Amino acid sequence: MRELLYPRSIAVLGASNDPVKLSGRPVDYMKRFGYRGRLLPINPTRRTVQGLPAYRSLDEVDGDIDLVMIMLPAERVSEAVRTCGKRGVKAAIVGAAGFAETDAAGAAMQEELRTAAAESGVRVLGPNCLGMMSVADRALPTFSSSLDEHVELRSGPVAFVSQSGAFGSWMFSEAQRTGIGISHYINTGNEVDLTVPELLDALLDSEQTRVLLAYLEGVNDGERLLTAARRASLLDKPIIAVKVGRSVAGARAAQSHTASLAGEDAVFDGIARQHGIVRVDGTEAMLDAAQIFAAGRRSAGRRLTALTGSGGAGILMADAATAAGLIVESWDEPWQAKMAAVIPAYGTARNPVDLTGMLVVEPDLLRRSLEVALDHPGTDMIVVLLGNSDGCADEFVAAVADAHETTDRPIVVVWTGGSGIPRRRLRDLGIPCYTDPGRAAAALGLLADYSLRPAMRQPERPPRIDPGAAREVIRQARAAGRSQLDEEESSRLIAAYGVRCAESRAVADADAAVAAFAELGGPVAVKLLSDRIGHKSDIGGVRLGLSDTEEIRAAAGDLLALARCEGVPEARLLVQRMAEPGTELIIGIKRDPAFGPVVVAGLGGVLVEVLADSASAAAPVGPETARHLLTGLRGGGLLGAVRGRPPRDVDAAADAVARVSWLAADLADEIAELDVNPLMVAEAGAGAVAVDCLAVLTKKN
Amino acid sequence: MRELLYPRSIAVLGASNDPVKLSGRPVDYMKRFGYRGRLLPINPTRRTVQGLPAYRSLDEVDGDIDLVMIMLPAERVSEAVRTCGKRGVKAAIVGAAGFAETDAAGAAMQEELRTAAAESGVRVLGPNCLGMMSVADRALPTFSSSLDEHVELRSGPVAFVSQSGAFGSWMFSEAQRTGIGISHYINTGNEVDLTVPELLDALLDSEQTRVLLAYLEGVNDGERLLTAARRASLLDKPIIAVKVGRSVAGARAAQSHTASLAGEDAVFDGIARQHGIVRVDGTEAMLDAAQIFAAGRRSAGRRLTALTGSGGAGILMADAATAAGLIVESWDEPWQAKMAAVIPAYGTARNPVDLTGMLVVEPDLLRRSLEVALDHPGTDMIVVLLGNSDGCADEFVAAVADAHETTDRPIVVVWTGGSGIPRRRLRDLGIPCYTDPGRAAAALGLLADYSLRPAMRQPERPPRIDPGAAREVIRQARAAGRSQLDEEESSRLIAAYGVRCAESRAVADADAAVAAFAELGGPVAVKLLSDRIGHKSDIGGVRLGLSDTEEIRAAAGDLLALARCEGVPEARLLVQRMAEPGTELIIGIKRDPAFGPVVVAGLGGVLVEVLADSASAAAPVGPETARHLLTGLRGGGLLGAVRGRPPRDVDAAADAVARVSWLAADLADEIAELDVNPLMVAEAGAGAVAVDCLAVLTKKN
Repeated sequence: MRELLYPRSIAVLGASNDPVKLSGRPVDYMKRFGYRGRLLPINPTRRTVQGLPAYRSLDEVDGDIDLVMIMLPAERVSEAVRTCGKRGVKAAIVGAAGFAETDAAGAAMQEELRTAAAESGVRVLGPNCLGMMSVADRALPTFSSSLDEHVELRSGPVAFVSQSGAFGSWMFSEAQRTGIGISHYINTGNEVDLTVPELLDALLDSEQTRVLLAYLEGVNDGERLLTAARRASLLDKPIIAVKVGRSVAGARAAQSHTASLAGEDAVFDGIARQHGIVRVDGTEAMLDAAQIFAAGRRSAGRRLTALTGSGGAGILMADAATAAGLIVESWDEPWQAKMAAVIPAYGTARNPVDLTGMLVVEPDLLRRSLEVALDHPGTDMIVVLLGNSDGCADEFVAAVADAHETTDRPIVVVWTGGSGIPRRRLRDLGIPCYTDPGRAAAALGLLADYSLRPAMRQPERPPRIDPGAAREVIRQARAAGRSQLDEEESSRLIAAYGVRCAESRAVADADAAVAAFAELGGPVAVKLLSDRIGHKSDIGGVRLGLSDTEEIRAAAGDLLALARCEGVPEARLLVQRMAEPGTELIIGIKRDPAFGPVVVAGLGGVLVEVLADSASAAAPVGPETARHLLTGLRGGGLLGAVRGRPPRDVDAAADAVARVSWLAADLADEIAELDVNPLMVAEAGAGAVAVDCLAVLTKKN
Repeated sequence: MRELLYPRSIAVLGASNDPVKLSGRPVDYMKRFGYRGRLLPINPTRRTVQGLPAYRSLDEVDGDIDLVMIMLPAERVSEAVRTCGKRGVKAAIVGAAGFAETDAAGAAMQEELRTAAAESGVRVLGPNCLGMMSVADRALPTFSSSLDEHVELRSGPVAFVSQSGAFGSWMFSEAQRTGIGISHYINTGNEVDLTVPELLDALLDSEQTRVLLAYLEGVNDGERLLTAARRASLLDKPIIAVKVGRSVAGARAAQSHTASLAGEDAVFDGIARQHGIVRVDGTEAMLDAAQIFAAGRRSAGRRLTALTGSGGAGILMADAATAAGLIVESWDEPWQAKMAAVIPAYGTARNPVDLTGMLVVEPDLLRRSLEVALDHPGTDMIVVLLGNSDGCADEFVAAVADAHETTDRPIVVVWTGGSGIPRRRLRDLGIPCYTDPGRAAAALGLLADYSLRPAMRQPERPPRIDPGAAREVIRQARAAGRSQLDEEESSRLIAAYGVRCAESRAVADADAAVAAFAELGGPVAVKLLSDRIGHKSDIGGVRLGLSDTEEIRAAAGDLLALARCEGVPEARLLVQRMAEPGTELIIGIKRDPAFGPVVVAGLGGVLVEVLADSASAAAPVGPETARHLLTGLRGGGLLGAVRGRPPRDVDAAADAVARVSWLAADLADEIAELDVNPLMVAEAGAGAVAVDCLAVLTKKN
């Protein structure tokens, strides 16, 4: 990785003498911006390339070659990679398109390249990528058009890894225009070998890099992304990710654009949240976040103090900050008095603090009010709202810069209108500056969320788990050649992991059903039991709330007749004690193509359909994460005290979610899908009971 | 209004010779930018002001004075307004602060000013305002700092009216920087006379103005806003509004900032939607919308075609467009073939159309693909996604401009990165251009919503309404000195407006309750009936689903005992036929301080608390609007077919909402508050029944 990220020598295979041609650009850029390493054009037919001595082949070069940029047509790339390997080259970049993103022939060529990379031991970036930039030392093995334009390369603490080439370059260009310093920009293209997650992981070790940006269309290496995210969180180096393909239209477009599978967006969303990845929706939001995180500060809380030169801007900020999850509290009386002492009489001393139009007449107001705000103990973050007033820019910038120096709390500025020059000056001082209050508020909200993220730790295995019992259920089903489990078997799976299930008896006929009822006591449900009937309630295969012998006998007879009529004469019956009514949840297991076993929690009943309200996390999770999943649901309030009804047993529900997630993790190879639907959650202290469960095993040879 | 909006002569009362002073700025600005009318500095002590001949008083001036900008201290303003009136002046602007926004003395001075304005017949803008700009003729009676900066005043089709001065000026400056042409910028300040709604209404008559921007902290003239909005919709001149004070923190800040009452945000939101007002959240969103609406085009549908130079940008656009309510459909095979014929083989011909990196090598690709897109009948709007590539700017701009000329469908460009010069050139050609795909998508979404808005028409009075019967209920209650109606009276109110109520009998004792049960047949509810018991279910005053005589007798006895124990011995009982179970809605009437009678519809039951899911509209509404209110609820899906259950009778529910809204409108003076909770909505065709209703009358002397 050192060779790729900080190459001391770069050979360009197929370097053209024409600086405008794609294959001429890397040499041109590195000459123009002054690459600090050894630049080695390789061209079999020329003695010089763009004025530099050229080599006929890699073998002609003396000394180490850290990195080779292969600017050859797709057909010749695999061979070139093997040649690199023989020459002892550790890393290569493949610019050519025409691989898996095109057709079957291209896909075959990509497989060939994969083999060549693996066999030669050369780490390959690409193919179908624009290359990369290591900005500090001007290592620019890339043909990205962003270096064609007038651009003043600006190094800094932000690294950016993108699956998309053109779009990545556009964003790189925007970042530079905004004044965001970039340590590396790397485009991974088709990811035949190096993936975005692996590069993020590697960049975490770079001292210069403190913020990681990622643009993702799909995740080819989910496990690695989670590892990188865990390390990033520990190192306090945030990963800010744009992951496209949220919508059906977007996912379809993503699939046709790269070989990446977009995966289910909600799963990515949940896993990103779980792992402290800061997910944003678009380019501006990403750069807005990059600015505030690059400043390197964290907040101790969510309380924002706003100092504003316009009352209106302060109100808008209060709205936007509230929407972003921040708290804009009125200061208490003594502190209002302190602020009132330094601002005009017709200003507002509570928060937002309105410095009034007097600010442009008396710019020192800003300095004085900042001093009070810095003293104020209930201020976790400060935003200063200014506009136009280029004439006062010197005083304003100095006041904010001095305040910024005397505190380690986050301070950001919103400067709307005017020439834009003061914005740039503030950013040059490392002070985030925005033009729109709403965007500043969103960035502050992300900073607070990240600063206050729960510590990332491996969840502990809950007590009373019996994986052996669960495996035995699966072994028996597999032995019988089945991959669909029936309700009774599925319930035994989760029961083995300590999830409480409604007590039940599997029986073969009406008499046995009546006997089971007597044994269970109280009202029962009688359900058809067969692995061949998936949605038994849809066919009328469930009878609820039966509480006398005759009812049960009749129901049993009806259900068995129904089974025969459905062509499932071997079906049995499950007699199950009715659960106390409560709030219905669904807990599910699914396998994400990128991330493996995932636990999903959501509201049950009619709401699951209408609100599509669920949350996912990579399995396993601890009860704390499980609780967050549940209380973070849009309808999560249904678990609280509603209309005088006491709150539900969230602890028990979270425990059940955690246990199911351990089942998902331990038996990831065995369980394709599992649904507890519903988990009936009774009132606090009274627990939660799984009332129905269905599992499907993975297909095995 | 002509005198204010297009003044042919402007006198500045108290004009200073010092162009830097607030009172010197209006003259300075108008000199500097070249006001095309007569500029008349009034200064009792100087013969010239800033090189212009000055007058000692208004009386010294010959000829008409259209507008007087009063730059005098607050104490002298009322007198000056009266002087204006005597001189025949029609309009004045009051810049001074120190009125209602400060203290009681200021508020008194503002009342004095109100009287002076009314008595003198002078229309007054302000006080506590920065004045206004009529950009085309450089009439700039303002001391806004936005004209201090380097600014190239740009006239155009967008008028901007703002309650906030400083913030308005900042936004004005941003608008100019973005290249948005402004016809008028007007700051209303404390609105002693002229309000934002009245000015919007007046600006609708300006031929030049095609888009109206409004920044609101509160609405002082709700009725006028609705009138303006209705006219704006008819004239197809959109009003784009930022209304701050959404959050509690924001509303509190708004209240301390101006004299305006923020009102309930959800009510404003509903009424804005109902009246075709385009509500946006912040400054950038407002200017983004201004750009696209200023282009003057409307869309015939929601189907967006995206042509992109980067696959990644196309995916992001598909996501963002979908989130904004647009449709990004894959083209059908024949049209894909047509597109495939003009783009590179490894491009993507379905929608989004990926033109690939080849675009910068062969810029004509854009022109060819645009031609196909313009032919494509399923394309309502086009977005072109570009980035960097200043080198190809000429070809790209020309291709888009030509396409724009040959169609009247909306075309917008997203140009990320690069120098920004092509963005400006496109905007100069009247083609909206953004840097961020998400912002472009949001603007396109607003354009589609507005283009497809339902025609604004006065709802028709539903049949079978008997206002006389409703008034009689109220008359009797008032005669008895009561303003709280009991359930039976409240139900009679809505029944008079044709809302079906569950059949019931008011009775005094257990025997009568049993008799009522016999008469009603089927299971009944028995409830305490008294105007002195507000929340009868909270005290156990409701018994549901009683179906035999003994149960009813017992319940009646219990409830009457309960009433005595609650100190309401006169309470009676309501025996009510149980409604078929269905989906519960709440319909409410409330009075908004700005907009008067409002109807609110929401989901009932537990959900109303957890999801806080309701929608408001100004009363009255027709059944169509009522249906929109209901189906637009977040949980509106509960009215559809869910889990195999047939859909609910939305027509009946919408009819009930409309009828309640007519009650609200007709008896606006009488009804302070009314809640139907719940309206039980049965399955389609089976109607909807009000099961409970409570009304509170307005306080009257």
